[in-house]
Amino acid sequence: MRFKPNSEALRKLASQEGLEAIVAMSPENFTYASGAFVLTVKMIRPRQAFAVLPAKSDPFVIVCSIEESLTRDESWIDDIRTYTEFVDVPVDVLADHLKEAGISSGRVGIDLAYLPVTSSERLKERLPGVTWVDTTDVIAAVRSVKGADEIAILEKATKATHQATLDAMAASKLGDSEFAMAKRIANNIIDYGADGTLFMCFGSGERSLQPHAIARDDVIPQPGDIIRFDVGGTYGAFASDFARTYSAGEPTDLQLQIYSALIAIETAVIDAVAPGVLAEDLFYLCRDEFKKHGVAFHMPHIGHSFGVELHEDPMLRPGVKTPLRPGMVINIEPVAKDGQGGLYHTEDLVVVTENGFRLLTLGLAPKELPVIGQKIR
Amino acid sequence: MRFKPNSEALRKLASQEGLEAIVAMSPENFTYASGAFVLTVKMIRPRQAFAVLPAKSDPFVIVCSIEESLTRDESWIDDIRTYTEFVDVPVDVLADHLKEAGISSGRVGIDLAYLPVTSSERLKERLPGVTWVDTTDVIAAVRSVKGADEIAILEKATKATHQATLDAMAASKLGDSEFAMAKRIANNIIDYGADGTLFMCFGSGERSLQPHAIARDDVIPQPGDIIRFDVGGTYGAFASDFARTYSAGEPTDLQLQIYSALIAIETAVIDAVAPGVLAEDLFYLCRDEFKKHGVAFHMPHIGHSFGVELHEDPMLRPGVKTPLRPGMVINIEPVAKDGQGGLYHTEDLVVVTENGFRLLTLGLAPKELPVIGQKIR
Repeated sequence: MRFKPNSEALRKLASQEGLEAIVAMSPENFTYASGAFVLTVKMIRPRQAFAVLPAKSDPFVIVCSIEESLTRDESWIDDIRTYTEFVDVPVDVLADHLKEAGISSGRVGIDLAYLPVTSSERLKERLPGVTWVDTTDVIAAVRSVKGADEIAILEKATKATHQATLDAMAASKLGDSEFAMAKRIANNIIDYGADGTLFMCFGSGERSLQPHAIARDDVIPQPGDIIRFDVGGTYGAFASDFARTYSAGEPTDLQLQIYSALIAIETAVIDAVAPGVLAEDLFYLCRDEFKKHGVAFHMPHIGHSFGVELHEDPMLRPGVKTPLRPGMVINIEPVAKDGQGGLYHTEDLVVVTENGFRLLTLGLAPKELPVIGQKIR
Repeated sequence: MRFKPNSEALRKLASQEGLEAIVAMSPENFTYASGAFVLTVKMIRPRQAFAVLPAKSDPFVIVCSIEESLTRDESWIDDIRTYTEFVDVPVDVLADHLKEAGISSGRVGIDLAYLPVTSSERLKERLPGVTWVDTTDVIAAVRSVKGADEIAILEKATKATHQATLDAMAASKLGDSEFAMAKRIANNIIDYGADGTLFMCFGSGERSLQPHAIARDDVIPQPGDIIRFDVGGTYGAFASDFARTYSAGEPTDLQLQIYSALIAIETAVIDAVAPGVLAEDLFYLCRDEFKKHGVAFHMPHIGHSFGVELHEDPMLRPGVKTPLRPGMVINIEPVAKDGQGGLYHTEDLVVVTENGFRLLTLGLAPKELPVIGQKIR
């Protein structure tokens, strides 16, 4: 699951922004800018890593020595430098290498939305002449338009995860615990090609209202219960993010109605995806569709871009006036409540194309609320 | 997999430290201090959450509104307050609630090793009278001694993961790809009780040298290849972290020798675990054992405490003069190289007891290098 970041854009970025250099260090910005997936940058935060993109010289990477070989294998950047954990302080090493590259004054970009205060203070001490500028969004903007290889990875991951859930829910039956069903999904996600799971949120009945509930083995969904899951597998630096709603059986008329409205709403929003449409337009359209269907709307966002980060820019929410562009990959995920303890959620991935969009899941959810044990597509 | 944090210690912490309040906000400090496992605090960083422990009034929690129900279900703190994502800026809401609690001057603790610069700047603007103090380690120190329920969760998780790998490697055979073997482990981890995987590092031959390699389906370990994995499942807020080394078959004398030395070294280090021993003492002992066995030593640390965070304090490395205390839970994980492209790694979990230690894995690795397909314990 290798990918090539847009290195051409990355090389030009610092000079385009009028900066001496840009340092990518948040887990997602480092992963994208370096093209190397160093798991511990996310999992062990003190083990910081930096992809440095100077305006006037070649890019280089600084990683913990134990991650050198992996980084060298995966990165498009040849110049890999290291520090020794606990002996060196990572930002001190960054400061030294910036100085060595002739950068000790002027404006330098870094992920100020990630850089912790303690690291920032050391950097300022070591490079008192530098003005630090937040470039979190500058790199996120490059990330927002995916290359063909990234789209291929995301499509493969999403289709595999979708199939994993279809098969798991078809194999589930009344009497199974939440945990038994969630386990089936997780096993299928791995069997169908993931190298692990990213998150496995699964709740039934009133627990469906907790978007990030973890399945419990002492909760057995009963007839009339709504079952909602939102799950993702890991595929190297990438992941899947997919949600569906089922009934444990004997759904009420209200449940059938809310569910069908939700699918109609999602379909309308996805159909509107096209280049030039603003991210916030999709949010407002979704809100209007909820109104049209007489369902209460209460979402802060109705979807998000997706790549090496779970919630990427552009987010589909008010205030985001980013026009959609071909190559953007977006999760659309409206959520509805029935006011009787059920939360309904459906989530699909689309890529913006020259003419509109292409669905990256196997297909939208069925128009009628599916019941566990049912073989659907 | 619920746990109760040491709420008595947490309640007293701010006044003990001479602070107006302590704000726990790093994913691990928030999880521990609140007792609520809100997955998105880790996965979607802008969705910040705060457990606020004032010196003179009752603790309260601030979370994104969509996480309210889950937090209310799991936290020992009754006073749950919310903000609306994208409408409110989380740290602005934190500042408002601190003011409301009468805290707008004096020294307030927060995780400055996590708090991003952009959030810090807003906090300073809103609460210009407050001096912010880093309390990352103050909460980590409370976390470092585990309660009986935490130890029980970690033991169950670790034993299940250990068994998962034993069975997976016994079922593996020459001709299987790295990916096929890693998949077996992942499926077993889920079958044996995890709700997901945390990380699945698996490398063979020269790829064993990459501590965080992801298994590849185009790499088939050959006779003479060393296979090394370091894997973990997720169990609610907790996880497992477990490493072993195998041979694909026909190990060389050098491989047998390095492996056996590693196990002898690990055994000696674990045997030395007892209350009062300093964390760094175990590091130095391990280094001496490597020397005694004539194996090159090159590790920045030889283990780490383990809890709601993967690498917790105390770390087993030079400079950490924390004495071990009963209830501390520690991974011991020496690593050796054979100088011919093989990396050997073994990792076990122990809890410090009143008299010494208790192993939380099923048992140490076999003294002789195991071969895939072999049924070992």
